[in-house]
Order: sequence, then structure tokens, then C-alpha cells
Amino acid sequence: MSVNKKTPQDAVTQVINSLEPIFKDRLQLGLAVREQHGQGEDSYGVMPPDAVVFARSNAEVAAVLKACHQWHVPVIPYGVGSSIEGHLLATRGGICIDLSQMDQILETNAADMDCRVQAGVTREQLNTELRYAGLFFPVDPGANASIGGMASTRASGTNAVRYGTMKENILGLTIVTPQGDIVQTGGRARKSAAGYDLTHLMIGAEGTLGVITEIRLRLHPIPEQIKAAVCSFDTVDAAALSVIDAMQCGLPLARIELLNALQMQACIAYSDLQGFAPRPTLFFEFHGSEASVSEQIASLQAITDDHGGTGFSWATSTEERNALWKARHNAYYAGMALLPGHRALTTDICVPISQLADTINDAEAKARELDLTCPVVGHVGDGNFHMLILVEPGNNEQLGRAQQLSHHLVSESLRRGGTCTGEHGIGIGKKSYLLQEHGAGVALMQSIKRALDPHHIMNPDKIFDL
Amino acid sequence: MSVNKKTPQDAVTQVINSLEPIFKDRLQLGLAVREQHGQGEDSYGVMPPDAVVFARSNAEVAAVLKACHQWHVPVIPYGVGSSIEGHLLATRGGICIDLSQMDQILETNAADMDCRVQAGVTREQLNTELRYAGLFFPVDPGANASIGGMASTRASGTNAVRYGTMKENILGLTIVTPQGDIVQTGGRARKSAAGYDLTHLMIGAEGTLGVITEIRLRLHPIPEQIKAAVCSFDTVDAAALSVIDAMQCGLPLARIELLNALQMQACIAYSDLQGFAPRPTLFFEFHGSEASVSEQIASLQAITDDHGGTGFSWATSTEERNALWKARHNAYYAGMALLPGHRALTTDICVPISQLADTINDAEAKARELDLTCPVVGHVGDGNFHMLILVEPGNNEQLGRAQQLSHHLVSESLRRGGTCTGEHGIGIGKKSYLLQEHGAGVALMQSIKRALDPHHIMNPDKIFDL
Repeated sequence: MSVNKKTPQDAVTQVINSLEPIFKDRLQLGLAVREQHGQGEDSYGVMPPDAVVFARSNAEVAAVLKACHQWHVPVIPYGVGSSIEGHLLATRGGICIDLSQMDQILETNAADMDCRVQAGVTREQLNTELRYAGLFFPVDPGANASIGGMASTRASGTNAVRYGTMKENILGLTIVTPQGDIVQTGGRARKSAAGYDLTHLMIGAEGTLGVITEIRLRLHPIPEQIKAAVCSFDTVDAAALSVIDAMQCGLPLARIELLNALQMQACIAYSDLQGFAPRPTLFFEFHGSEASVSEQIASLQAITDDHGGTGFSWATSTEERNALWKARHNAYYAGMALLPGHRALTTDICVPISQLADTINDAEAKARELDLTCPVVGHVGDGNFHMLILVEPGNNEQLGRAQQLSHHLVSESLRRGGTCTGEHGIGIGKKSYLLQEHGAGVALMQSIKRALDPHHIMNPDKIFDL
Repeated sequence: MSVNKKTPQDAVTQVINSLEPIFKDRLQLGLAVREQHGQGEDSYGVMPPDAVVFARSNAEVAAVLKACHQWHVPVIPYGVGSSIEGHLLATRGGICIDLSQMDQILETNAADMDCRVQAGVTREQLNTELRYAGLFFPVDPGANASIGGMASTRASGTNAVRYGTMKENILGLTIVTPQGDIVQTGGRARKSAAGYDLTHLMIGAEGTLGVITEIRLRLHPIPEQIKAAVCSFDTVDAAALSVIDAMQCGLPLARIELLNALQMQACIAYSDLQGFAPRPTLFFEFHGSEASVSEQIASLQAITDDHGGTGFSWATSTEERNALWKARHNAYYAGMALLPGHRALTTDICVPISQLADTINDAEAKARELDLTCPVVGHVGDGNFHMLILVEPGNNEQLGRAQQLSHHLVSESLRRGGTCTGEHGIGIGKKSYLLQEHGAGVALMQSIKRALDPHHIMNPDKIFDL
């Protein structure tokens, strides 16, 4: 982790003095607020900013950036604080812009199945509002994250195999540049060949190129029918081969989640799941018309039968389905409950699906070799899985083994054509992996950063060092 | 169109001298070859480069760029020359890199449904080779374009409504930077949150940021069943409303193409279509399992019935289907045949689908008002349509009216939240529209261009002026 390279206090004071008349009591200097904003949900610790402003408009965000640009003071955008890669650490102090009060759904166009929201709107808030239009926004990273944060980290989650990630579901953005200009990217057309794709440059830039203040989203019709199913296997290989076959048949599965034996053991205990065994298990969700869903289930069951899948059972009622997916969503807490009082180091590699079984087998073997407790959950339709490596606070020897395991997983992923992060981002802890993964590409990224943010004020020390 | 700002001859000579030992007879200076490479399939005329090199490897492309970077000589990448926006005009002379000999499919991973191809591989070549693996690459712009050219212009076409455009179907690229460095972007993982999205920055950059030499593509399983259907309507409105309803029901239609009454008249004559009337007509294609396709057809027929669609008929046999789609693919030539000896100015606007009927109605009315002959074909599931404005060579007064109509369409599109180009690119003729559409965003694009190509050698005078 980078050390705290403090920004000169007089520059910070100049910025705070210029912003106080605009923000009044929405500019906060108290330690509690600053500390709350100087951390995510990870274990990178706390590095508080010098001040937190609660912005309510594009113009207010622009005012912050103009002042910070003038005085070379860092700016860190903040949604709900659910980052798990240290994105929110104020490594050099500066101003945190909390966007949670920019929580308006600005327009919904039902006929075009798009909407425009402010960055602080959360995923659950959006879907609650959209329900009345018969539409939904599919990207579901688990946490009730803000749409702005999800855009900034290129988030995805359980539905990506069918509906894509944030990358595929954003039509355009409003960004405030490091100089304080308000710029629209993309537009309402479903496609465009007009100029450079600034939208995708900003998605996943982790707040290092500007502040995303508004997001124009693609929406999807709520399916006529939703069913869920569960099937367990002797081995991770058998489960992975079922997934490959299902993808190759073009089955439009909405969710395909793998839980390894240890994770299933944890979920059975934590969520009191009845009728399940601690074996590698796939959770499926099917969206479509009644006939299409029935056909998907029949095709899938034939595939899982071929690979020795047992206990294929489906949940039709909303209650049954919700219970299953609640257990899946609680997998993180279930995993944590395996060793109460421990904290988790979460890996996020993503490999080509042909490599998935070998990669998970290797990861499990390495965890055993290093004597670590590591449940696994995976968005396996995309080849992405998370290993929770449980670590006892204060046990530095064990933390060393955990880091060794995490490092091993990234190395294996890169060797197999995968990525060091499927959906969490680089943040502060994976900068060396980005260099391994993208080599000369990182120099291009740095050129772009220098061109767009010459004073290097936007979320410094994230993604790469300059 | 920009004037020819000639690059100093001694700089060009230095580059040619340094490249001759590498390329030998694959470096061509003859006027015929240079003129062939200094134009596309549009009506922007010819501006030949100073030399054409036929590259066979990344290293050879890198050698060209290193020399051109050193001597500040322009570089224009060339695929098959099917651009229709003046991308290939050597406005300042320089070196054209013909990539057609980089035509190898480097790897196909059937289990992961991806492949990596050299930039000169054409769409039809790729699909012929993939057939044996039961896979296909869906992006179909009509022309048998090169994959590199399609990536560079963010091409799409008839299948985009179901499978997306080039943007959604590229996993990674090999690019050669303006400095001659060979850089890999993206990777084989289906998703990644690792750093800036250089892949999407290069897609649609029209060769202004580097040369795309290899493309890693997502592939799709060949559907179990493919059927086509045709339905005609009293009005464009009725057709457009049918499309909106189909999209809102989540029907996974693979193709939805609109031909207006004049275009149908042209196609009936040109392709000898039996049983069709010169009325607004939708062509559909359905992909899926037998049950899914039957269900899609039934749902769609109910929708078109609601909007007064008549003559709903489907083609099951490959022959019938091919005849229909051949007629659709020949729509351009059919339109041209309405007024033999004329040439066409092709518009490319794309609007939110709720705006589609009004936009087409307005375009047809304006064409009548200006006394121009203008068939319309549209990828209406995306809101994208092309109006062919037929112009008699040498008739400058008529050309003026055609340009007035084209300008009117772009203005209407932007007013309705659309784009000036859905899939052809900005090239040399739409730079002022890009400014209208993206305003302050163009300055960001220019900053990126200056950072990555400081000597401004890559395909100068395209997308924007510097």
C-alpha cells in the first residue's frame, strides 16, 4: 500500500475556504465523517481525506474540481463505500466527494428501455422504481452499490453471463473532468460510430480520469417467468464441464453460480439449507417465456445428467427462489462464519471457462497445501470466481500464507489467459498485477491519464503509479 | 473535404528508402496501386498515398510506424477498402499499410467460443472456417469487410439487435502504436476490471490512434434453427410500433430490417421477389431451438397482427431464407437501379427506437419536398437506418439538395437524442456533426489523440481536425 504523501496544508485550506460558501454544512471536517469516507469494505485500513463534501449537482462537483485543479489537491469520488480494493483511501489527503445525495432517477424511457440516473442512485433503489414500468437493470454485484461506483469499477456479478457487465449496459455518461468541465459521453442511440468511445474509457477508470455524475443505462424487460435450479456434482470438473456444454449449446441462462464443497458446507450451516450436501454445486436461474424456461431446464438437466449431476431440483415459487438466492448472496457471510472472528482476503480472478476447473482445482490444492480455510464462489458462466481466504487478525504468519495463495491464483490466472480482476478493479493492491497482465498497455493508460489529468488530482495512487 | 496538405517529399523518401529493404516488391509506388488504395466505396474521390506497403506481420507494421514516426510521415491502414466515409483518403500523402495479406486465423478456442485473427481476415472467410466448429461470428455489415476495418469503424449491421456490434464482440486487440510498439489490449477472459479499456478506445478510432493488427473475437454457437419471416404494413409507423413491442417483450430476434415502400419497389424489381407489394416491410430472422423459434414467430405474429401487418409469411428452408436475405443484402444495388447511372449519398443516422417512425416519416417528407429519390433500409431494432439519396453525376444543383437532405436528417437525429452515424464512422465528411453531437467531448478526444500520437501521423484529417 502506498504511503501517505500529504498534500500541502495551505493548498487544502485554500480549497476548503473556496468551497465552504457553496456547501456550507455539507462540507464536513470532523474525523468520524472523514474516517468513514477513507475506507471501503476491504482490509486496506483507513486513510481519511482532509474534507468530505456532499454534492447535489453537476455544478457543485464542477466547483470542487475547479478548485482542486487550481490548487493541485486530490479528489476522491465516493458512492456507498462498498469498494473492496482500497479505492477510497485518501493516500495524499484531499477532498472526498460523496455523491449519495445525487440520488435522482432523472428520466425513464419505457419505449426505448433506457433511463438516466444520478451517480448516487443505488441498484436496489433503481430496480424498485423500475418495477412499475415492467423493466429492470440486471447488473447485480451483490452489494447494494451506487450506479456511479459500479460504473467506475466496471462491476458485474451474477447476471453478467446473460445480460453483460456495466460495460455492456451503459449507453452514456455525464462526467466532470479534472478541470471542472461537464461533459456528456455516448447518447440515447443504441449504437453509434461517432468518435472515440469516451464512455468505455471512463467505465472502470476507478475515478482516476474524472467524476461520473450521471449514467444512462440500458434496461431489460422483466422476464415473463423466472425459475431457479440447483444441481450438485462429484467434482468441480464435472460442474465446470456442464457449464461449458450449456454455454456451447447457446442456452441463455441468466445466472450460473458455482459453490465449492466447503462453501456449500458453510451455506448449509449459515442459511439452514435443507436437502443439500457439502459437494460442488451449481445454482442456475432461467429467464424467459414459460415455454422457453421449460426448454432451458430440460436441456440443462440433460447436460448435468451427462456429467453425473445429482439432486437437480428447481424452485418455481418466488419464495423458494428467493431462499436459494438469498443463500447464494449470503455466501460471503456464510464463508466468514466458518471461522468466527477472522477476516477475509477476497480473490477475483477470471479465466477462459475451459480453464476454470483446472484453475479451481489448483486453487483448492494450494489452499490445502498452505493450510488455509478458503470457500469458493464463482460466476462460472464468465469464468470468474472468488476465493475467500480466511485470516485471523494479528496472525502475520498466516496473512503471509494468505498473500502467497492470492499471488499464486493471480499467477495461474495470467498463465492461463485470464485476468487478475474480473469485477473488483485494481485499486491500490493490484497495481503490480496490472503491469504483469497488460505490460506495455499500462504506458498507454498512463499517457491518457497525464493528458486528461495533468495535475494528477483524480483518485491518486489507484490503478498505477505515475 | 480537407485539402491535400502534402508531406515534405524528402521525409517520404527517407521512409521509403528505409522500408524498401524490408518489403522489397511488397512496397509499391505505381499510380494504379496508390489510387486504388486512396479511396473507399464512397463518393469522396481519390487521394492517393505516396506508397503502399503490403504487411505480413506485426513486426513489419511496427517497422513502418517507427520510420513514419521518426520522419513525421502519415500512415493510413487499409483493409479491403469498403469504407464509405472517406477513411482511406491520403489527405497529406504518406504510407498506406495494406493488411490484406495478414489473413490468418491464428487460434480458435471452441470450448471458450473465442478466436484470434489477423486484421486482414474477412468476415466471410472467418465464418467459412468457423462452420466446422459449429460457431459463427455474428457481425454482418453487408460488405465482406476485413475484421480489422470493422473494428476500426465500430461496424455493426443486421445482426446487432441480438448479438451486438463490433464493440460487444471483441475481447482484445493487438495494436501497433504510432511509435511502433506492439501492444496487447484486453485478453481471453470474458470480463475484466483491470485498468483502462484500451480495447474500446481503439474500436471505432478509425485508425487515428494506431494500427489494429490482430483481433480476439467472441464467437457464438450456430443456432439449432434459423427461420426468416416477412410482414408488410400500411405505414412506417405501424412497422415501427411492431418493432418496439417486440423489443419490449424481450423477443430475442436475430434480425429486424425495415424497407420502406420505395425500397421494396426497388427490391421487387431488382431481385424478382414474388408475392410482395411496394409497402413498408419488415424482414425478420429468428435463431434458437425449434421450440424457441416457433414461440418467437407466434409472439411476433400476434404483435404484427395488432398493428395491421399483412402477408406475414416465413421461410423455413435455407433456400427460401437465403433468397429473402439476398434481396435484403442487395437492397443497395436495387436502390441504385431505380435511377441507372446515378450515384448514392448514404445517410447513417441512429435514433432511440421510440423516435424511429417520426424520423423516417420526416425524412421521407423532406425527400419529397426536395424532389429526391430516396429508398430507405434500416436496422430498426437498433433505431439505425440508411437513406440512399440518388444523385445524377455532374448535377450540382441536385447534389446541393441531397446534401441539404442529409444535413436535415442529422439535425433531426441529434434533436431526437440520436447520433450522426450508427455504424459507418465520422471519416472525413462528418467532423462538424461530431462537434454538434459531442461538444466538449471532442476536446477530450483530441487530448487523447495528442497524447498517443504526438506527431499526428495516424490517418490524419479523420474524425476531427487538430
